[in-house]
Amino acid sequence: MSCPGEVEARGAFVIHPKPSVPGPLNLALLYPRSFRYSFLMSKQTAPSPRTQVERLPERGHYDRETIHGILDQSFLCHVGFVVDGQPFVIPTGFGRVGDVLYVHGSAASRMLRNLAGGVPVCVTVTLLDGLVVARSLFHSSMNYRSVVILGTARPVIGREEKLRALRAVSEQIFPGRWNDARQPNEQELKGTSVLAVPLSEASAKIRTGPPKDEPEDYALPIWAGLVPLRVAAGAPEPDPALPANVAQRVPEYLRDYRAPGSR
Amino acid sequence: MSCPGEVEARGAFVIHPKPSVPGPLNLALLYPRSFRYSFLMSKQTAPSPRTQVERLPERGHYDRETIHGILDQSFLCHVGFVVDGQPFVIPTGFGRVGDVLYVHGSAASRMLRNLAGGVPVCVTVTLLDGLVVARSLFHSSMNYRSVVILGTARPVIGREEKLRALRAVSEQIFPGRWNDARQPNEQELKGTSVLAVPLSEASAKIRTGPPKDEPEDYALPIWAGLVPLRVAAGAPEPDPALPANVAQRVPEYLRDYRAPGSR
Repeated sequence: MSCPGEVEARGAFVIHPKPSVPGPLNLALLYPRSFRYSFLMSKQTAPSPRTQVERLPERGHYDRETIHGILDQSFLCHVGFVVDGQPFVIPTGFGRVGDVLYVHGSAASRMLRNLAGGVPVCVTVTLLDGLVVARSLFHSSMNYRSVVILGTARPVIGREEKLRALRAVSEQIFPGRWNDARQPNEQELKGTSVLAVPLSEASAKIRTGPPKDEPEDYALPIWAGLVPLRVAAGAPEPDPALPANVAQRVPEYLRDYRAPGSR
Repeated sequence: MSCPGEVEARGAFVIHPKPSVPGPLNLALLYPRSFRYSFLMSKQTAPSPRTQVERLPERGHYDRETIHGILDQSFLCHVGFVVDGQPFVIPTGFGRVGDVLYVHGSAASRMLRNLAGGVPVCVTVTLLDGLVVARSLFHSSMNYRSVVILGTARPVIGREEKLRALRAVSEQIFPGRWNDARQPNEQELKGTSVLAVPLSEASAKIRTGPPKDEPEDYALPIWAGLVPLRVAAGAPEPDPALPANVAQRVPEYLRDYRAPGSR
C-alpha cells in the first residue's frame, strides 16, 4: 500500500526509511497510534538528517498531490521559527505557487529580513475534520489532515515575485478577489514582506474513519463514533461604511465562499 | 483604553512596555496594521527578555480572563519546539487547569521526556472568526482570536497529576466524556506523555470588526465587508461496529457539541 518502492515509482519523492531524531512528531494530536505519518523529499533535494519519521505508517500519503491537496484546502498556517533558542509559532496566511509556499509577513519582521542566508522555519497547516469518540479515552482522537513543512525561508525581494506571491496569498484566501480590489501601491508593497519556503521537505499526516478500540472494549455498552467538524462560511456582511448600491453587490466569489477544509 | 497602568490596576499582569527582540510577532496574519498585540506576564514571573511586543496596541487585551477565555474556546494548539536549531510545529490537543496548560504527547516523544530541565516551547491557539474583505488588498485581513504562550515545558510524571492533566485535555475536547468512557489503564497511562506549560508568559491578539481602509479608498465602488467563519459540528455518526441499541444512545454532550470558537 505505502511502501517506499511504490512511492518512488511515482517519480516525485524519496521517503526516508529511518528517523534520525526520535520523537518530536509524536507530540501529535491525541493518541498517535492512529496516525499515519509520511515524510517526503523531492528528488532535487538531498535527504536531510532532520527528517523526522518515527515509524512508517500503515496508510501513509507520500505523493505530492496529497500534500498540495491539503495545502490548497486552507490559507492559514502556523509558522515556527527560533530566536535565541526560543521557538515562536505565529498564525499567518499563505499561498502556494507550484512547489513554493509563500508566507505573508510585515516589513517589520526585521529578524527574518536581516537573515540574508535564510532562516529555518517550520510551516504547519492543519485541517480539523472531526472528533474521534472512542470507547476508551486512550483511543479517543481527532480526524484531521495536516502538512508539516521544514525548510529555510527566503525573503522575497524582487518586485515581480513579491506581487506574484501576494497575489497567491490573496487568491488562496479569497479566490477571485485580487482583480476586484484596489491593488497594492509601491509603498504598500515595500511595507509588506513575503517569505518563500520550498515544498521540498514536507510530511502529510491524515487520520480518517471511526475509532479503533482495543478488541475487548467493543463489548462495552459505550457509545462511540465521530463528531464531524467543518469550517462554515456565513453570509457576507457589508461594511456599514459602504453606500447602499455598492453594499448590495456582494461578489459571487464571496457569496459562494468555500471555507478551509471543504474546497 | 489599554495603558499599562490600567492593566496593573487589575492586579494580575505586568505588561512589557518595550520589545527586546523586534519583529517575529509581526509575521502575523495578513496585514498586521489592524492587529492588537498584548503581552502579559504574571506577577509571579520575572519579566523575560524574550517578550516580543513590537508595539503597544490600540485595543489590547491584557487581562487573564481574555487569555483564558480564548484558550477555553478551543482544544487544538500548535506546539513549537526546537531540535538542532530547526523549529517544529505540531498540532495537538491541550487542556487548561488554572494557570497551567497541559499538552498531550505520546511516550515516544523521548526528546521532550529526556530533557529533565524542561524544553522551551511556544504554544499557539488560533480561532479564525472570518475574512476581512477590504477595498484594498493591503488592508484585507482576517478576524481572529489567538494566544501565544512562551514557556518551558515540564514533563508530567506523577500519576495523579497525569490523570488530572489527561482528564483536562479530554474535557477540553469533549466536556462530559471522561466519566462515560473507559478510563486509562496503567499501561495506557505509561504510554501517554503530558507536558505542562505555565501560562505565566502569554500574549493575546484579537482582530474584530469591519475593514479599515485608507481614507481615499472609501470613495471606490468596491464591495467590502466580512465573511464570517466558524467551526460547525455535524450530527454524531455512530461507529458502524456499535450494536444498534448502543448506537441509538448518542450522549447529550455530543449531540449539543459546542465547536471551537463558539463555546
